[in-house]
Amino acid sequence: MGSIEGERTTVGWAARDPTGILSPYTFNLRNTGPDDVYIKVHYCGICHSDLHQIKNDLGMSNYPMVPGHEVVGEVIEVGSNVTKFKVGEVVGAGLIVGSCRNCRACKSDIEQYCGKKIWNYNDVYTDGKPPQGGFAETMIVDQNFVVKIPEGMSPEQVAPLLCAGVTVYSPLSHFGLRDSGLRGGILGLGGVGHMGVKDRGRADWKHPVCQVIGSSEKRKKEARETLEQTIMWLSSDETQMQKIADSLDYIIDTVPVGHPLEPNLSLLKIDGKLILMGVINTPLQFVSPMVMLGRKTITGSFIGSIKETEEMLEFWKEKGLSSMIEMVKMDYINKALERLEKNDVRYRFVVDVAGSKLDDHQ
Amino acid sequence: MGSIEGERTTVGWAARDPTGILSPYTFNLRNTGPDDVYIKVHYCGICHSDLHQIKNDLGMSNYPMVPGHEVVGEVIEVGSNVTKFKVGEVVGAGLIVGSCRNCRACKSDIEQYCGKKIWNYNDVYTDGKPPQGGFAETMIVDQNFVVKIPEGMSPEQVAPLLCAGVTVYSPLSHFGLRDSGLRGGILGLGGVGHMGVKDRGRADWKHPVCQVIGSSEKRKKEARETLEQTIMWLSSDETQMQKIADSLDYIIDTVPVGHPLEPNLSLLKIDGKLILMGVINTPLQFVSPMVMLGRKTITGSFIGSIKETEEMLEFWKEKGLSSMIEMVKMDYINKALERLEKNDVRYRFVVDVAGSKLDDHQ
Repeated sequence: MGSIEGERTTVGWAARDPTGILSPYTFNLRNTGPDDVYIKVHYCGICHSDLHQIKNDLGMSNYPMVPGHEVVGEVIEVGSNVTKFKVGEVVGAGLIVGSCRNCRACKSDIEQYCGKKIWNYNDVYTDGKPPQGGFAETMIVDQNFVVKIPEGMSPEQVAPLLCAGVTVYSPLSHFGLRDSGLRGGILGLGGVGHMGVKDRGRADWKHPVCQVIGSSEKRKKEARETLEQTIMWLSSDETQMQKIADSLDYIIDTVPVGHPLEPNLSLLKIDGKLILMGVINTPLQFVSPMVMLGRKTITGSFIGSIKETEEMLEFWKEKGLSSMIEMVKMDYINKALERLEKNDVRYRFVVDVAGSKLDDHQ
Repeated sequence: MGSIEGERTTVGWAARDPTGILSPYTFNLRNTGPDDVYIKVHYCGICHSDLHQIKNDLGMSNYPMVPGHEVVGEVIEVGSNVTKFKVGEVVGAGLIVGSCRNCRACKSDIEQYCGKKIWNYNDVYTDGKPPQGGFAETMIVDQNFVVKIPEGMSPEQVAPLLCAGVTVYSPLSHFGLRDSGLRGGILGLGGVGHMGVKDRGRADWKHPVCQVIGSSEKRKKEARETLEQTIMWLSSDETQMQKIADSLDYIIDTVPVGHPLEPNLSLLKIDGKLILMGVINTPLQFVSPMVMLGRKTITGSFIGSIKETEEMLEFWKEKGLSSMIEMVKMDYINKALERLEKNDVRYRFVVDVAGSKLDDHQ
């Protein structure tokens, strides 16, 4: 790595255009400021929203763009104000790297809802420059957006918790759905969905088996083999769906593409909640009696706060849970993204960044 | 009134077919059973859902049908088990006249969500016969679905509280929105909407003026003249709407026909609630980021329980509130229904049933 005034270089893999193909990319990072933590990336998970970003699905992408927001690494330098983290410690970073720290959301420790939040890539940082993500040798992150990884947790399995894991944990916690007496469903069994199975189905032994609702017989078979205690219901099978009508206190809806809401609303009890987690840019539909006549709720949730991330990590550690991942090297990432788009992964890809050759010019 | 075995006759005004035209109709009522309260109807409000029913808008209407479910009257006979009500007392009855009394909803005093609830007309009662509504000389109602009207309240102004009033009160109470620090909006200024203005805008003096969002400049002018302390925002005026963006804790959405949700979701703060109260049979639409990125809620609510009706009546009495009505005689009802369909009433029609000639054969 070289350095220029106030900056140094690092190397990562970037998308250059909406084809979304990643390739090696050398770029500048700011030098470590008073509140910064400089991190050598070890592992970084691949999230479905990385696909949306690199392919400009939401029409807001700027290139070159180094994606990746489920980052685990090692502290290699800290700024003068940083007391919480030390060189050599294992830390994590997620989707948000800045917020106003002054609004109601920030003051309530739900900075993910701050109107001025800064995404860890495809955004503009406070210095006017684009921050870049975790598919890179190093990252620099404000200490307020860094979490410690509890000792004893496997760093590669922790990586997906920093987005997918907290995305499930946050609404369950906020909406008071962690009570073991409640009966929950999970719609869609991908990276986020399988976190729900782990968090609910296994951690909480008094809880009935997780009701997973999916569309594929193949996936159902796999789920039975890989995720113990999981019952999967096929949304296409009306007889099956009728068996669980009016029976669920909540549904975690992880489906990231357009889908009908009414069959799922009909599974909810009175006062049940349908919680959307997929950023979907086509309209979702329902008729008002479907919510009115059971006082049902359609709501949504967006990742989780740093505070919730810390709580979730402690919870997963205490319960001895782990995510199910397929580890790949960086030179496999384009293939991995292709497979992710087809939902062909059990259940999250994690890139072994530190163990990969990043720069093809070296 | 004559009588046959186990029954007696009464006279009301019924719709005979989907034209929805009401005309005099003589029909049978069961004799007073042990749990029944026999009521001489004094006043009955006209609700928008009466229009849906008489015109078969929901495809479930059976004729002849005597509508009317905002009933205030006088007890003229009680069954042997009835201790709560006495002959001569002023009482009210609403949309629901039966429920299973055994399910979670019934046991939680939210019997309006019981799967076996019985509507006060256009339904089948426990005796296998169709119950009939409040546009009639007398009604017979199970004591569990009758409320006392507190002394000192004007009975004609109370009538619309028994549906429209409790429809607003129930979700505000259930969702914890009665706190004076909260800022609420009301979408649509009809019979239900004006109850919201009264309940929130006037009762709670610390509360900011009610934010009413409507579509008509004419209605805005009228609202200013008739409902003090009311500010009305035109949903068609983008500059006005932007002024209250991200500012509301909740919106009471009383619009009974299809309308866009997103402009209204954008008015809500983080964690804000859009509460639907209109039975609308065309689909409503939104995109998921509109709820996810502020953890906003779309929910709905259906009238209110008997317990909430009693609480609401006490609240309105204590605060000295009254609804705004236009009183009519029964022979005006078809014209009133026509005007209601055009939203041409400030703000609720109430029929002076006892003061009307009901039977044109007498």
